[in-house]
Amino acid sequence: MTDNFLMILPKFMAIQEAVPATTKDIEDAVSAINGDLGMLWMLLSGILVFFMQAGFTLVESGMTRSKNAVNIAMKNLLDICVGSLTYWLVGYSLMYGDTSNGWFFWSGLFQGEGADLFFQTMFAATAATIVSGAIAGRTKYSTYVIFSVVMTALIYPISGGWQWQGEGWLTELGFIDFAGSSIVHSVGGWAALVAAILVGPRIGKFVDGKVLPIPGHNQILATLGVFILWLGWFGFNGGSQLAWGGADAIGASNVVLITNIAAAAGGLGALITTWIWYGKPHLAQTLNGALAGLVSITAGCGNMSSQGAFLAGLLGGILVVFSIEFIEKKLKIDDAIGAVSVHGVVGVWGTVVIGLWGIDGDTGIGLFNGGGITQLGVQALGALAYAVWAVALSWIVLFTLKKTIGLRVSKEVEEKGLDLAEHGTIAYPGKRDRGE
Amino acid sequence: MTDNFLMILPKFMAIQEAVPATTKDIEDAVSAINGDLGMLWMLLSGILVFFMQAGFTLVESGMTRSKNAVNIAMKNLLDICVGSLTYWLVGYSLMYGDTSNGWFFWSGLFQGEGADLFFQTMFAATAATIVSGAIAGRTKYSTYVIFSVVMTALIYPISGGWQWQGEGWLTELGFIDFAGSSIVHSVGGWAALVAAILVGPRIGKFVDGKVLPIPGHNQILATLGVFILWLGWFGFNGGSQLAWGGADAIGASNVVLITNIAAAAGGLGALITTWIWYGKPHLAQTLNGALAGLVSITAGCGNMSSQGAFLAGLLGGILVVFSIEFIEKKLKIDDAIGAVSVHGVVGVWGTVVIGLWGIDGDTGIGLFNGGGITQLGVQALGALAYAVWAVALSWIVLFTLKKTIGLRVSKEVEEKGLDLAEHGTIAYPGKRDRGE
Amino acid sequence: MTDNFLMILPKFMAIQEAVPATTKDIEDAVSAINGDLGMLWMLLSGILVFFMQAGFTLVESGMTRSKNAVNIAMKNLLDICVGSLTYWLVGYSLMYGDTSNGWFFWSGLFQGEGADLFFQTMFAATAATIVSGAIAGRTKYSTYVIFSVVMTALIYPISGGWQWQGEGWLTELGFIDFAGSSIVHSVGGWAALVAAILVGPRIGKFVDGKVLPIPGHNQILATLGVFILWLGWFGFNGGSQLAWGGADAIGASNVVLITNIAAAAGGLGALITTWIWYGKPHLAQTLNGALAGLVSITAGCGNMSSQGAFLAGLLGGILVVFSIEFIEKKLKIDDAIGAVSVHGVVGVWGTVVIGLWGIDGDTGIGLFNGGGITQLGVQALGALAYAVWAVALSWIVLFTLKKTIGLRVSKEVEEKGLDLAEHGTIAYPGKRDRGE
Repeated sequence: MTDNFLMILPKFMAIQEAVPATTKDIEDAVSAINGDLGMLWMLLSGILVFFMQAGFTLVESGMTRSKNAVNIAMKNLLDICVGSLTYWLVGYSLMYGDTSNGWFFWSGLFQGEGADLFFQTMFAATAATIVSGAIAGRTKYSTYVIFSVVMTALIYPISGGWQWQGEGWLTELGFIDFAGSSIVHSVGGWAALVAAILVGPRIGKFVDGKVLPIPGHNQILATLGVFILWLGWFGFNGGSQLAWGGADAIGASNVVLITNIAAAAGGLGALITTWIWYGKPHLAQTLNGALAGLVSITAGCGNMSSQGAFLAGLLGGILVVFSIEFIEKKLKIDDAIGAVSVHGVVGVWGTVVIGLWGIDGDTGIGLFNGGGITQLGVQALGALAYAVWAVALSWIVLFTLKKTIGLRVSKEVEEKGLDLAEHGTIAYPGKRDRGE
Repeated sequence: MTDNFLMILPKFMAIQEAVPATTKDIEDAVSAINGDLGMLWMLLSGILVFFMQAGFTLVESGMTRSKNAVNIAMKNLLDICVGSLTYWLVGYSLMYGDTSNGWFFWSGLFQGEGADLFFQTMFAATAATIVSGAIAGRTKYSTYVIFSVVMTALIYPISGGWQWQGEGWLTELGFIDFAGSSIVHSVGGWAALVAAILVGPRIGKFVDGKVLPIPGHNQILATLGVFILWLGWFGFNGGSQLAWGGADAIGASNVVLITNIAAAAGGLGALITTWIWYGKPHLAQTLNGALAGLVSITAGCGNMSSQGAFLAGLLGGILVVFSIEFIEKKLKIDDAIGAVSVHGVVGVWGTVVIGLWGIDGDTGIGLFNGGGITQLGVQALGALAYAVWAVALSWIVLFTLKKTIGLRVSKEVEEKGLDLAEHGTIAYPGKRDRGE
Repeated sequence: MTDNFLMILPKFMAIQEAVPATTKDIEDAVSAINGDLGMLWMLLSGILVFFMQAGFTLVESGMTRSKNAVNIAMKNLLDICVGSLTYWLVGYSLMYGDTSNGWFFWSGLFQGEGADLFFQTMFAATAATIVSGAIAGRTKYSTYVIFSVVMTALIYPISGGWQWQGEGWLTELGFIDFAGSSIVHSVGGWAALVAAILVGPRIGKFVDGKVLPIPGHNQILATLGVFILWLGWFGFNGGSQLAWGGADAIGASNVVLITNIAAAAGGLGALITTWIWYGKPHLAQTLNGALAGLVSITAGCGNMSSQGAFLAGLLGGILVVFSIEFIEKKLKIDDAIGAVSVHGVVGVWGTVVIGLWGIDGDTGIGLFNGGGITQLGVQALGALAYAVWAVALSWIVLFTLKKTIGLRVSKEVEEKGLDLAEHGTIAYPGKRDRGE
């Protein structure tokens, strides 16, 4: 033993000079690196979510008339510009502030920083932009500006805090909404419903009791838009892991994987549904089906098996076809691109499905089996709370706007197209417009 | 010595309390982090490869007539939806399963997970989507659905395992195909050739012995599509490193770098070739040249110097121009967008060029010099094997479909456009279509 | 003590067998991982910057006439192809070479490698592509080829070295240009100015003293292009941190965050300016405003608070509207898409604003307060130096080309469109063009 000791002593002393390391030192180093990895993942995810604004622009303009395409572009640009500023100014603080009673949060102006603020900002802009598609073709731009400010500064952040601040009343109840089926999509979708009702249908949509189609002007751009949204959704859902490293790397990878499976199932679900129902596989509905698949898994992407994600997405893709038909044909509400169905109705579906076949992310045990009916109830309650909040607040803001500056352009402006009247230009100036 | 010992002892004991670390502990920590880094890189690469589906949609629709653009979009959407599901269900298992005889692999249903399955899935969808462009404008959608299922579930995964499973017969021979010039692109390209032959040329392509041009309807969308494909290819090739960290970080970075050089050389090669041959630098061929440059380096991006990549890409870009002309003018085969040349012919070129001036990734020694003629022979054999497999399997499937449900739409449907007949809609509804 | 010693000895010996680690070992491991992380970030950033080429293609073609859209696509493809090759061949060496006198650098052919060369290459291609938009619609393609080669091989790299090589004369003076407001954008912008003057205005732009509008043909593609540029800019600015890990992760995240804030402020600044001035919020100017916001923060994104970035972007967005009007209406220079204003004028603004309210990245102390008027003077000097260099070199090259092979196509070619005459094709072949 002594021999051994003497043999190793020189080595030992050399180490001493070099400062020996403890496992705690390694843990600290790993922890710092995991922090950096998490920042990288959130930043990259935020960049992907940013790109969704381009996707929304293409889907919304492609699925509506060319005479309003500039207006759509201006609305989506506005959403990212306004959202980036208001959320930085007050939104982040209202959503993630320290001072709280479980319903409202605040920490002062200009809170949040770096990758986290960047990532969260993009979610606020997304919530706002969902509304613009539903009310395309007849809404005053000035009105939309005000609504976009209120949406990104107040409506979205306040209710977002209920769950994502970590000490909100829905968190306390055990509500699960990983990436925002309710918090982002259904809030945007229900606001879109209120807006579509208050602003009324486009001229020529409902004539003599008949529902007339107003086809979009460029289905290829709409398709590109859906591919971009699908792409961005990998960041939307995956980035909501908020970390990378160890279990989080595996978790976030799985989130991205099942997000893709749900989107594929949703697209296929809508494709098959329209093939059976309409007799032909229908592009616009297949696109909505893929988006519905994505919304279906947005809340549950951290609490779902691959098979569960497939089923959630498939049913979401079928549901969205019927929902769009129902809102248009039965409710006679003119939602120009189906935003209420894709984000609102399917947002609720994505939230409650967790209570049906969601699983505990750590143990893999079914939440329904584990928590009984409770989890399903909490999911339904949360979905309802976001619906009530979004409908109530949107109604207050938009009804006030309707009674003051007005929501809607004149008949002449609508018929001529918003682009020329509201923006003094058209999307596709041809030879004639250049005086050739 | 004793003094020294007594001096360091307190320090030593403090360390003991804090648990001293070994270099093994550090190695384990680094290894875990490298695992997380590799997962991040594969996931991000998979996301980039996913986006290639949007690129294919734009290239294929932009390079063909507007009356079939919806059909193209529906095919590409189908490929990613079907591919994401079949590859998850059986494809991954058939490609990477444990039980094997070197030719066929299997591990059971629903194998693969996380970033790895996500990344591999996107490759399967790519292989399928290559086919859709070649047979644009006259193929029945229902037939395409079946072919897409077989391609992603069986044809691509089975032969992919020969090389990428790690114990396949081509791996054993020393075959090199880093990211799939043969495994993905030429398999897709040869299937496209079989499909183009069996389905026959579009009406109006070959009339009275003359070859008539059928120009695409939107070359700007086609250009955007190529930029998106080029972008996605950085993930396609770079992600095939399958890891990040240490030598892998340098390796993957180099892969991306030389992928870009080859693409640039390919684009320039085609641009110059057409300038000399046609008298004017030609857009569609330059686009195909850039894609050819990418296919040229896909197999060899881990075994090529920058200069070697340049030369491979340049010659690939020149080759593709002649190949497209040859297949169209001499063979009288109607490949609507040049997919057979870009992916099939150049896929072979990208595979065999490794035997000419490929290098050992570790030593930098030329494979030709190192392994003599052997490596070139193995590369040729592998390219041949994938060609035979893809042609044989595609023929069996498509010939069966031709004799049963049929491959081709009626003359009326083709002339009217597939969009209206197969999907009940058109890509660009204008004023007239809206009854204005 | 002895007891303690005897108790820990077995543990100690076990560690010896396992080789004890030092904090230096951990530091080395962390340093290696940070190197890998930096490589990943630079590579991903380079991939984002690559995509900017697609953005430029869409902005430039969307904002100009359809009869020249193929030509625009061919120019942008050329820039990335040529830039990728010349910068690899000589550009990197001229910019980052070891041998230097502070003004010129060199290390031999084919310098640079991996993620670093890839990232830097994309900057060179960007500088070149800025020029193509300004001179759209009347410039000979062969001339542009030569200019693109000179730009990426000589003009951009030589002056880039003054600052980014690390030992250049501007670095020595304390000049700050984090991501290239001057080095990339204003160099491109001033070259565009020289080109626009030498090539002259498009036919029909200035008639009888009147300035006539020549509207672009597709504002939706232009909008998509701006979204893509905005997206790519996160890599352009963020990647210029050149590292990830520890302070660099926080730094790069902050760069991306304030880049977005400046872009949003720029877009909003232009939107409001046009709403007040033109009476309507204007799409093309809002798009230019967002780009101006991005250029405004490109130099200072490592030296600016969020509020400073907001103000820089906002003023940049306002400035660009007036600058475009001034250059067109007062100077009667035909810059087809406003490139001189967006990249040149605002590039100078982004450079000098650092001297006004830039801060020290480490201490947060205002540079103006800290360094007095000096920093502002250095920024102005640097901006001037890049302007003089870009104007002088571009003039020499373009004037020589004008006197030899000519800059401009014939009147007939210009009126018919460059696409048909220079490339033998048109961007959007319709029914008529297919003989239907």
